[in-house]
Amino acid sequence: MIGRLNHVAIAVTDLAAASAIYRDALGAKVSPPTALPEHGVTVVFVELPNAKIELIEPLGAHSPIAGFVAKHPGGAIHHLCFEVDDIVVARERLKQCGAHVLDDGNPKIGAHGKPVLFLNPKDFAGALIELEQS
Amino acid sequence: MIGRLNHVAIAVTDLAAASAIYRDALGAKVSPPTALPEHGVTVVFVELPNAKIELIEPLGAHSPIAGFVAKHPGGAIHHLCFEVDDIVVARERLKQCGAHVLDDGNPKIGAHGKPVLFLNPKDFAGALIELEQS
Repeated sequence: MIGRLNHVAIAVTDLAAASAIYRDALGAKVSPPTALPEHGVTVVFVELPNAKIELIEPLGAHSPIAGFVAKHPGGAIHHLCFEVDDIVVARERLKQCGAHVLDDGNPKIGAHGKPVLFLNPKDFAGALIELEQS
Repeated sequence: MIGRLNHVAIAVTDLAAASAIYRDALGAKVSPPTALPEHGVTVVFVELPNAKIELIEPLGAHSPIAGFVAKHPGGAIHHLCFEVDDIVVARERLKQCGAHVLDDGNPKIGAHGKPVLFLNPKDFAGALIELEQS
């Protein structure tokens, strides 16, 4: 069911510093920071040949990653995003397997303008998983 | 400098259960478990179209991930692996940028039979990074 690994998101407290690490030390192609106020993050896209690393920093008073970065002030891997062909079909299959969808269970429009869902890490070996309709 | 995202490793305490999640719920192609006693892990490869997820379980009395899974008994994302053309060139560049290589700083032969190094997460926004010579 799952297709490509779309991205790995790393939550950070200092986006400029994290971006410089990927650009200067690791020599990767790094986008300018993009504020996504509707998602409560500012994001830098690190473009690798086969996937993206997304560096995300809390934005605004109610960022969904504020608690996570408070717990991991040095940064930490936050989630993995897998692509699926049909997000509602994927959701129903996962629910039948006993997995739990976060929030109200309905797809939202994600940071790439496509429908996304997040799955409870307790059902997925401790990893927070985002599904994105491709 | 860095090339493809080769894999994301998730450390787990119950490899059979984690493997079943990826095979049955997420519908991915999952390998049989492979014991790698020289690396202190048993691994299951989850094959996605563009990258791998590697589920790793401690093996033996001195597994390098024993402490990590004791701290994260429900599992957790353990590291990201990026490919590089020349691991010694990569190491020297990273050292010049102030980054720290783990262990004795010399490449070892990794789980795929290729030279690898691990980098200190404190220098990389909290993410443990493996470099593998491609």
